[in-house]
Amino acid sequence: MSGSPPAPFTADDYRARMDRAARSAADAGLAGLLVAPGPDLVWLTGYAPTAVTERLTLLVLAADRDPVLVVPALEAPDARKAVGAPALTLRDWTDGTDPYAVTGALLAPRGRFGISDNAWAMHLLGLQKTLPGTSYASLTDALPMLRAVKDTAELELLAAAGAAADAAFEEIRKASFAGRRESDVGRDLADLLRRFGHSQVDFTIVGSGPNGADPHHEVGDRVIRRGDMVVLDFGGLKDGYGSDTTRTVHVGEPTDEERTVHDIVRAAQEAGFRAVRPGVACQEVDRAARAVIEDAGYGEYFIHRTGHGIGVTTHEPPYMIEGERQPLVPGMCFSVEPGVYLPGRFGVRIEDIVTVTEDGGRRFNDTTRDMVIVE
Amino acid sequence: MSGSPPAPFTADDYRARMDRAARSAADAGLAGLLVAPGPDLVWLTGYAPTAVTERLTLLVLAADRDPVLVVPALEAPDARKAVGAPALTLRDWTDGTDPYAVTGALLAPRGRFGISDNAWAMHLLGLQKTLPGTSYASLTDALPMLRAVKDTAELELLAAAGAAADAAFEEIRKASFAGRRESDVGRDLADLLRRFGHSQVDFTIVGSGPNGADPHHEVGDRVIRRGDMVVLDFGGLKDGYGSDTTRTVHVGEPTDEERTVHDIVRAAQEAGFRAVRPGVACQEVDRAARAVIEDAGYGEYFIHRTGHGIGVTTHEPPYMIEGERQPLVPGMCFSVEPGVYLPGRFGVRIEDIVTVTEDGGRRFNDTTRDMVIVE
Repeated sequence: MSGSPPAPFTADDYRARMDRAARSAADAGLAGLLVAPGPDLVWLTGYAPTAVTERLTLLVLAADRDPVLVVPALEAPDARKAVGAPALTLRDWTDGTDPYAVTGALLAPRGRFGISDNAWAMHLLGLQKTLPGTSYASLTDALPMLRAVKDTAELELLAAAGAAADAAFEEIRKASFAGRRESDVGRDLADLLRRFGHSQVDFTIVGSGPNGADPHHEVGDRVIRRGDMVVLDFGGLKDGYGSDTTRTVHVGEPTDEERTVHDIVRAAQEAGFRAVRPGVACQEVDRAARAVIEDAGYGEYFIHRTGHGIGVTTHEPPYMIEGERQPLVPGMCFSVEPGVYLPGRFGVRIEDIVTVTEDGGRRFNDTTRDMVIVE
Repeated sequence: MSGSPPAPFTADDYRARMDRAARSAADAGLAGLLVAPGPDLVWLTGYAPTAVTERLTLLVLAADRDPVLVVPALEAPDARKAVGAPALTLRDWTDGTDPYAVTGALLAPRGRFGISDNAWAMHLLGLQKTLPGTSYASLTDALPMLRAVKDTAELELLAAAGAAADAAFEEIRKASFAGRRESDVGRDLADLLRRFGHSQVDFTIVGSGPNGADPHHEVGDRVIRRGDMVVLDFGGLKDGYGSDTTRTVHVGEPTDEERTVHDIVRAAQEAGFRAVRPGVACQEVDRAARAVIEDAGYGEYFIHRTGHGIGVTTHEPPYMIEGERQPLVPGMCFSVEPGVYLPGRFGVRIEDIVTVTEDGGRRFNDTTRDMVIVE
């Protein structure tokens, strides 16, 4: 039984991705790419080993040869079942033989290679020892946009994941908040994501009152009270593609200040979204959202970047951050999620997943961005 | 909410482990150890980040300084809650600063370091670039026995995990097999492991008939039939420590040959177990089990090593394999799991987790090793 997510992709789709990746590597001056189990390998081949162990599994891509998947002999039957398997050659190795020698024989001995960020250090050390003339760069450094531009089928899957997260929000807003722990609401959110088709829940942030002012707070034992702002930020994977949305609700009637801050964040989120169009640098999305918050006098309380990419993971390039000059390209997908965090008091964040279209942006989350009052 | 497993350990326990690890590193000629999120970090500190991302988290251990945990600022509040946190210093870094420079400042610029096998390649590359005079070895190469000897509390947790797996077997043997798919029985096994306290199921192998002859087969769509041998190999984590046991059952009455092969494997497992005592090399456990199978004329059908260690993972050193001269030490825990695999026909494997005691071995699995007849 493979852990590969169901996906409507064919061997030809994977072949096209591998071709494109190999050409991008050559264009970047690399002799090839070394792809480890995880999001890169799933995206390029559809293959996800049942378990990632110390036994080396590595896809070797180079412009001048067909793709080769180095795989432990015991796992070769599983790998053969991957949708992308017909588009590559399997090279299996048995316990007691040296997988670095097997892999090394496929590599230019003085080449520079991109390697998956999350490849195991022990495998990189094995390759460096076997081929001391080679050098390496992490895939995010070498080809940060490798998986960034999504094709039509991927966009549909991301839209469906977003719709499922929206359905979860429409349910949770009917739940009772006052008197329950953050962890209870978090559990509800996880259950709802699964009910609406998620196979994996990556995070369920419930930041009530002062906890909402810590953007990394997940859920705690705090009992939510009437009068609290509550940041709800949740997502995971549905059919192999990610969701990630945030709404900030209020238990009972908000104060004027709470309304004001929520309005500012909502306007900032709208401004970030409006900035999305092909050719615009990622940092411009950040600047557009940030300007609204700064102009309102809350700039020092917006303490993180405006967004991150999403695809087969819920957290990947491109990043909407000052200094990122990468131009937006139709098919890129990322969050737009400005926030204001007033230490010890409350926080507000509003987040949608947005994709770049030919003439602007399209949201994959569409629940109301008005402040929702909950019980 | 941290993903750290519940465990009855104190900050002093973690301090002792970190001290021991730093001393072992010095004894092995290393300038220190670099420990990434995963089993090494959980074992040394009790800390498991909610998610492992591209942001660097790394524990730096060296004999001449107190332990330092380099951690993203956003995750520092979580890290501070780890049971082992009082035994170390937190060094946080914020987005936009260079975590490799922060870490590099803690390292001898020309030192050789052990690094967790599963540390991300991108982090190793970052360190190699920042400190080109340093060199690295994987922890499994440098200190394979780092986590191998378990203390009393760990032994109790492993015993409890083994008892839970045994309880799962006592239930599954009452289930109906004939007419159901392997995947159905696998799902039952996973549910049972969870019902008996497992938080994580790592594998549920159900190898019926010819599928049993592939030791890596997990579960498939094959419908189990009367007359099948069925290999059941299952385990996972309970309270942070692993279980892993195998029994081979038969649907209805076995043939004489099936009985004979089962008897041979049972005798081999017993011989492997009897070989366990302090000072004996790991390979002797393999040899003892293998000799029984070879003497019975089935040597060519025992196609894997006899065992692997277990602890905070279900698969770690020490390995019971020819060539492993590591002497057994009281407190080591590992599987003894010989098997015979007749291609296209059936397989038999019997597996217990065993710990080394002062005068022999003790099993953590104790369901009958007689062949169980199921319906």
